Amino acid sequence: MKMGGNELEKLRGELSEITGSILRLIAERRRLSLRIGEVKAASGKPLLDREAEAALLRKMLNLCGELGLDEELCRRILLMLIEDSLNLQRTKLIEKKADPLAYRKIFARAAELYRMGKPVIRTEVGQPDFTAPPEVMAAAYEAMRKGYGRYAPAAGIPELRKALAENLSQRYGVDLKPENVVVTLGGAMAVYSAIEALTKPGDEVMVVEPAWPIYGHQSRTYGRRVVSAMTRLEDDWDPIKPLEEGLTEATRLVVVNYPNNPTGKVLSRKDFGRLLETASELGAWVLSDEVYRDFLFEGEDLSALQFPDAKTVVVGSFSKSWGMTGYRIGYLVAEEEVARRAALVQNTVATCVPEFVQYAAIEALKQVEVARKNVETVRRRLEVLSEELGGSNLIEFTKPQGAMYLFPRIKVDGLDSIDFAWKLLEKKGVGVAPGTSFGEGYSNYIRISAVRPVEELREAARKILEAAEEAAAGKL
Amino acid sequence: MKMGGNELEKLRGELSEITGSILRLIAERRRLSLRIGEVKAASGKPLLDREAEAALLRKMLNLCGELGLDEELCRRILLMLIEDSLNLQRTKLIEKKADPLAYRKIFARAAELYRMGKPVIRTEVGQPDFTAPPEVMAAAYEAMRKGYGRYAPAAGIPELRKALAENLSQRYGVDLKPENVVVTLGGAMAVYSAIEALTKPGDEVMVVEPAWPIYGHQSRTYGRRVVSAMTRLEDDWDPIKPLEEGLTEATRLVVVNYPNNPTGKVLSRKDFGRLLETASELGAWVLSDEVYRDFLFEGEDLSALQFPDAKTVVVGSFSKSWGMTGYRIGYLVAEEEVARRAALVQNTVATCVPEFVQYAAIEALKQVEVARKNVETVRRRLEVLSEELGGSNLIEFTKPQGAMYLFPRIKVDGLDSIDFAWKLLEKKGVGVAPGTSFGEGYSNYIRISAVRPVEELREAARKILEAAEEAAAGKL
Repeated sequence: MKMGGNELEKLRGELSEITGSILRLIAERRRLSLRIGEVKAASGKPLLDREAEAALLRKMLNLCGELGLDEELCRRILLMLIEDSLNLQRTKLIEKKADPLAYRKIFARAAELYRMGKPVIRTEVGQPDFTAPPEVMAAAYEAMRKGYGRYAPAAGIPELRKALAENLSQRYGVDLKPENVVVTLGGAMAVYSAIEALTKPGDEVMVVEPAWPIYGHQSRTYGRRVVSAMTRLEDDWDPIKPLEEGLTEATRLVVVNYPNNPTGKVLSRKDFGRLLETASELGAWVLSDEVYRDFLFEGEDLSALQFPDAKTVVVGSFSKSWGMTGYRIGYLVAEEEVARRAALVQNTVATCVPEFVQYAAIEALKQVEVARKNVETVRRRLEVLSEELGGSNLIEFTKPQGAMYLFPRIKVDGLDSIDFAWKLLEKKGVGVAPGTSFGEGYSNYIRISAVRPVEELREAARKILEAAEEAAAGKL
Repeated sequence: MKMGGNELEKLRGELSEITGSILRLIAERRRLSLRIGEVKAASGKPLLDREAEAALLRKMLNLCGELGLDEELCRRILLMLIEDSLNLQRTKLIEKKADPLAYRKIFARAAELYRMGKPVIRTEVGQPDFTAPPEVMAAAYEAMRKGYGRYAPAAGIPELRKALAENLSQRYGVDLKPENVVVTLGGAMAVYSAIEALTKPGDEVMVVEPAWPIYGHQSRTYGRRVVSAMTRLEDDWDPIKPLEEGLTEATRLVVVNYPNNPTGKVLSRKDFGRLLETASELGAWVLSDEVYRDFLFEGEDLSALQFPDAKTVVVGSFSKSWGMTGYRIGYLVAEEEVARRAALVQNTVATCVPEFVQYAAIEALKQVEVARKNVETVRRRLEVLSEELGGSNLIEFTKPQGAMYLFPRIKVDGLDSIDFAWKLLEKKGVGVAPGTSFGEGYSNYIRISAVRPVEELREAARKILEAAEEAAAGKL
C-alpha cells in the first residue's frame, strides 16, 4: 500500500508535467496560427481555407490512428483547436461579420410599433395571418376533455405517427412505418433534434444559403462548426455548384430547404437527386427541411424521401399549411435508429409534445381543403408582390416557385440590409427581414413575407420601392 | 505575394508539426492515466479523486494564466482530458455503474402490460391520476378560438409572467418582476434552459441525491461533468454535510429539489439558508427545483427566492398541482439577465410555449381550491402507504413531509433495485421506480408514487412486502 501510494504520487507528478506540456504547445500553436492569419491578411487571402483545414484534419486523424487514440476524442480536440485559431484570427484581425440574429431586434421593434397602434405593415415574420381551422381547435379541446393531457411517448402518440407515415407514403410513393416518424415541438425542435442525433460538438454542418437563420444558430450554439454553401440569384439559386465546391469529408451534415425560405426556389428531380448524391458520396447526412411542401406553385412535388439511397432526415410542420405556428407541432422522418435518437433528444430537453395538440394535428391532416385554400391565398399574394416590384430597375428577384416569400435584391451599391430594414420600418412603417439574416452574402437583399392581405402588400411594395429609390439617391 | 505564399507554406508545416506533438502528448497522457487507474485499483482506491483533480485543475489554470491562454478554452481542454482519462480507466478497469436510465425500460414495460389489459398497479411514474380542472381546459379552448395559436414571446406571454411574478411575490414576501419569470415547456425545459444558461460544456454540475434522473442526464448529454452529493436515510436525508464535503471551486452549479422527489424531505429555514450559503461561498449557482412546493405536509413553505444573497434559479411547474403533466408548462425565476439567457435557450430549441396553453395556466393559478384538494388526496395516499409499509422490519423509510412519493429501503443485503423493480412488475404486477435511477448509492431503494387510489396503493404495498420477503429468502 505504501509503495502504491508513492508510485501514485510519482505518476501524478508526471501527469501534471505532461498536461502542462500540452498547454504550452497549445499556447505555441495559437501564436503560430495568429502569424498565419497575419500573412494571409497581408496577401489578401481569406482567413478560412477549407482545403488546408481538411488536409490538416486528414493528416492528424491518420496520426491518431497510428497512436491508438480514439477517433472521436481526436476530432473533438482537433476541431476545437482549429476553431479556436480561426476565432483568434478573426478577433485579432477584425474581419467584419454581420450578426445573423440582428433580425430579432427589428422584429421586436415592429411588434412594439404595432402594439403602440402605429401604422406598420408586418411582412417581417414567416407566420401566416390565417389561424387553425375550427375543426382542429375542437379536436384539441375534445382530446383535453377526454383526459389526453398527460405525458405522451417521446416520439409522439402512435395514432399521429401512423397518420403521418401513411400520408407521406401515399403522397410520395414510399413505404414509411410509424417508427420512422417523430412528432416534435414544431419544425425548430425537429431540426434541432436531427442535428443532435446526427452530429457531435466539433462536427461540421454545412448550410445551403440563403437559409432560415435557426439552422446555423442551433448548430453554433451546440458547438458545431457551421460552413455555408452560398447560392446566387444570378445562378437562379442553383445549389449544386456551391455544394460540390464546398463539401469535404469533414462535413457531417448538410441542411437544405426546398421550397426555399427565402428565395422560393424549388428543385427539379434531377437537381434534388444530384444534391443528395453529392452529399452521400462524401458520407454526409442531408437534413431536408420541407415545411413549405404544400406551398408549391411550379415544378414537381418532391421530397428527399423519394431518394432511398441518400442518408436523409426530412422535416415537416403543421405551422404553415394550417396556420398553426403557435401550436408548436412538427415532425421528422428518418430511418428507425435515427428517429429513436431524435426522440430521445426531444425527451431530454422537453419530455414530449402535448397530447391534445397531437390529436389536433390528426384532425389537421384531414383538413386538406383548408390547406389548399391557404396555399392559394399565399400564391395570389406573391403574384401581387411580384407585379408591384417587378417593374423597377432598382429591384431584382426570381419569381417564387414555392414557399411564402419574395427575396428581392436592392440594386444599390454598398447597401446594408440591416440598416435598410431598420429605416424601412422606422421611416416607412414596413417590417421586412434583412438579407444578412439568411447568410453573410445577402447584404443587398430583404425578405418580404406574403402573410398580409393583398392591399397591405401592395402598399408595402410601394414603400419598399420608395425606400430603394431614396437609398439609391443617398437620401434614406 | 510569392514570398507570402512560401512563408505560409512554412508556417503551415510548423502548425502541422506542433499539432502532431500535441496529439502525441495526449496519447502519452492516456497511457499514464491508465497506469494511475491500475495503481488505484490495486490499492483499492476509488478511480475518482476529487481532491487530486481539483488540485490539477487549479495548477493548470494558473499555468494557462501565465501562458496567456484563454481560461474558457483551457477549462474545456482540461476537463475533456480529465473526463477522457476517467472514462478510459472506467472502461478498461470495469468499474460497475448502474444505468440511471434503466427505469425507462421498466416504465415502458408497465405501460405495455397496462395496454395489454394485464393487472398492473402503476405507481412507477411521477404523474398524478387527476386531470386539469374543466375551467383550465375551457380557458385553453377559448384562447385558441380567439386566435392565440401564433408565435408567442420566447419568455412567455406578458400576462402569465406577470401573474406568476405576483403570485410568487405574495406567497414568499418577495418582489419579483415579470422580467424575472420565463414560461417554459414544462419543468424539464426550465431545468434544461437553466443548466444551459448557467454553465458551459466541461463545467461541473453537482446534484444532491437522490434526485430525479433528468438533472444528471441533461447535464451529461450536454457535456457537463456531473458529481453527486449523496444524502442518506440514516442522516434523515440531510444535504448539508454531503454538500460541504463535495463542493470545490470547480463546481459551477448545484441542483437541489425540496420538497424532495423521491424522499419527501423538506428543508428547515436554517438548513435551506445554510445550503445556499455554502454554495454561494464557493461561487456556485443553485438550481432549486420547487415543482412540489404545493405538496407540503409538514414544515415551513419555503422557496430559494427568500434568500436574496444566494445566486439561485427557481423552477416551478403546473404539472403536479393541477394534473397538467401533458400540457408541458412550467417556469423558472431568476435575475433578469439569467432569465433572458434561459429564454433564448428555449427559443433556440423549441421557439416558445403554445400561447393557448399559457392562457390555460393563468386560469390554473386561479384554481387554488383544486390544487389544495389534489394535495390533500396525495397526502392521504402517502399516509396509507406509510401505514401499510411501516410495520415491516424489512422496510425502512422516513415519512414524507412533502412531494408525492415514498422512498423505502428494502433491507435485503445486496439487493439490486433494477432487478427488484423488474420482478415486482413481472411477478407481482406492481410498477415502481428503481432506486438507482435517483443515484448510484440507492440500490436498496424503490420509489412508489402516490398517484393511484388508496385501495390500489394498499394492494401495491402488500405486494411489495411479499416481494421483499421473498427477496430476503432468496426466492424472488
